[in-house]
Amino acid sequence: MAIRILVTGGTFDKVHDPISESLVFHETHLPEILERSRSLLDVKIRTVMLIDSLKITTGDQEIILKVCQDAEEDQIVITHGTSNMEKTARFLGEKIKDKTIVLTGAMVPYVFLNTDAMFNIGAALAFVQTLPHGVYITMNGKIFNWDNVKKNTELGLFEKIS
Amino acid sequence: MAIRILVTGGTFDKVHDPISESLVFHETHLPEILERSRSLLDVKIRTVMLIDSLKITTGDQEIILKVCQDAEEDQIVITHGTSNMEKTARFLGEKIKDKTIVLTGAMVPYVFLNTDAMFNIGAALAFVQTLPHGVYITMNGKIFNWDNVKKNTELGLFEKIS
Amino acid sequence: MAIRILVTGGTFDKVHDPISESLVFHETHLPEILERSRSLLDVKIRTVMLIDSLKITTGDQEIILKVCQDAEEDQIVITHGTSNMEKTARFLGEKIKDKTIVLTGAMVPYVFLNTDAMFNIGAALAFVQTLPHGVYITMNGKIFNWDNVKKNTELGLFEKIS
Amino acid sequence: MAIRILVTGGTFDKVHDPISESLVFHETHLPEILERSRSLLDVKIRTVMLIDSLKITTGDQEIILKVCQDAEEDQIVITHGTSNMEKTARFLGEKIKDKTIVLTGAMVPYVFLNTDAMFNIGAALAFVQTLPHGVYITMNGKIFNWDNVKKNTELGLFEKIS
Repeated sequence: MAIRILVTGGTFDKVHDPISESLVFHETHLPEILERSRSLLDVKIRTVMLIDSLKITTGDQEIILKVCQDAEEDQIVITHGTSNMEKTARFLGEKIKDKTIVLTGAMVPYVFLNTDAMFNIGAALAFVQTLPHGVYITMNGKIFNWDNVKKNTELGLFEKIS
Repeated sequence: MAIRILVTGGTFDKVHDPISESLVFHETHLPEILERSRSLLDVKIRTVMLIDSLKITTGDQEIILKVCQDAEEDQIVITHGTSNMEKTARFLGEKIKDKTIVLTGAMVPYVFLNTDAMFNIGAALAFVQTLPHGVYITMNGKIFNWDNVKKNTELGLFEKIS
Repeated sequence: MAIRILVTGGTFDKVHDPISESLVFHETHLPEILERSRSLLDVKIRTVMLIDSLKITTGDQEIILKVCQDAEEDQIVITHGTSNMEKTARFLGEKIKDKTIVLTGAMVPYVFLNTDAMFNIGAALAFVQTLPHGVYITMNGKIFNWDNVKKNTELGLFEKIS
Repeated sequence: MAIRILVTGGTFDKVHDPISESLVFHETHLPEILERSRSLLDVKIRTVMLIDSLKITTGDQEIILKVCQDAEEDQIVITHGTSNMEKTARFLGEKIKDKTIVLTGAMVPYVFLNTDAMFNIGAALAFVQTLPHGVYITMNGKIFNWDNVKKNTELGLFEKIS
């Protein structure tokens, strides 16, 4: 059975627009990242949205939920902005019990020399293959359950609630 | 408990020497890779050797075995050249039953733009936290048991024996 | 005689701040760029300011002018944001006749994989060694005199006025 | 009139072959380099050969000479391995007096993170637009006449003979 990757946007996929001199979305880099990583996993990528997760709405989260529920795969990786990632994880974790879902993102976009995107996607694809059903976040090499994770916005990292 | 990373060399850590115009070893890039990846795992790195694994000897494998056995950590990641990686995995797998050991490497050195090193180390650090005791190889996002993996040297990838 | 490089900021030196998720200044990358480029030129770098050139003032331009006039070197490269670069060039070009001054910048910051910073600085350091006294802009491999250049903000490039 | 770029190979264009674990040639990166550099120069690229310049023969140099002589452009940049670059420059310099020809190369291939290729090609394209007729080498930001340059193989750099 393939692994499903759902793309929702976030820092992960931002690029530099030389005209506006700001970070914007064009399209996901997931196919390029997996090729560069020489991944041989059977992976299906679907772009669900390309948004800044700071602006994610309950409506957006309901769309992500529905795509997860409708997917025939039971191993799902979701790329997500780090803002509100723990809220989307909680939203999914309360409702989905029969799949392994791992959310991940990046603190530095893929198009930067010092990106953490490749490391995080490598970790997410490993965790999704080995963890029991449930919803998780992986960032910085660490793994968190959906019901025990918060973002420390001051330090720019995730940590356990308790 | 920390995760132990043992460095043995391989393509992973090769750099370009502009004088001899060839690929050589200087030192391991693991600390730099983990910093760039923004890893927050409690990791201890030890360079055991820096060799081309094409030339690995039984003596070298015995050293790796002893360092694994002596380590107080029971989660160990080993960076290794892809040549003979499955032989070192078998050598360790037959003798170590009470630790989780994941070997990984790179097809393209870390210092190249299109390296697979960051993806592989991300996957290895995830697998080592979640898999039961045993010895494994992860390359290309896939995970193999030490007793069911071979290198396809023609295609430059790992696959199951059966 | 050394070549003087004056740093004023601009896209060239912007980095990604993972906390605010925006592009900011920390310090100039010129020393790192020249080391990576293996430059063996006798170069002296001075950071005059680190600003977004969209906000450059006449006061700022007077500072740049004074630093150029006071410099003992008569070959000067200035890194500058692409916004208002042609205005600073004109400001300097009307007043300095006894030095060769080349302004350059980047459309994509140095810390991105697809940066044009290294190409532009390579070109600027070559032009400053060979052109007669005067003030110039180099971007995209092209060279412009200070009195015949404008920025096409729609296309994000420089072109001759006539 | 366009600038002609002649590709002959060298470290510049070497890539890593994951199967043989060595540096080899596939094709030139010049179009990619110029795109990434956002070059807007009118440039025509021709691959003349893709060889390791350590093995360049008089026959090869005669081919390069003939392509230079036959080119309708009088501004020519040649990418060349650093081995024997000064010999090819001398070979051309003695015979071509009515064109500006700049040879350049790289100490670290383009596909490495720390490549000097973009800096060197930026410098070469600037020098070729400004220097009088003659044959030159640019490396490390410096410019050398064909009759006053040698390679210091120990340090891996070029310097004046006298």
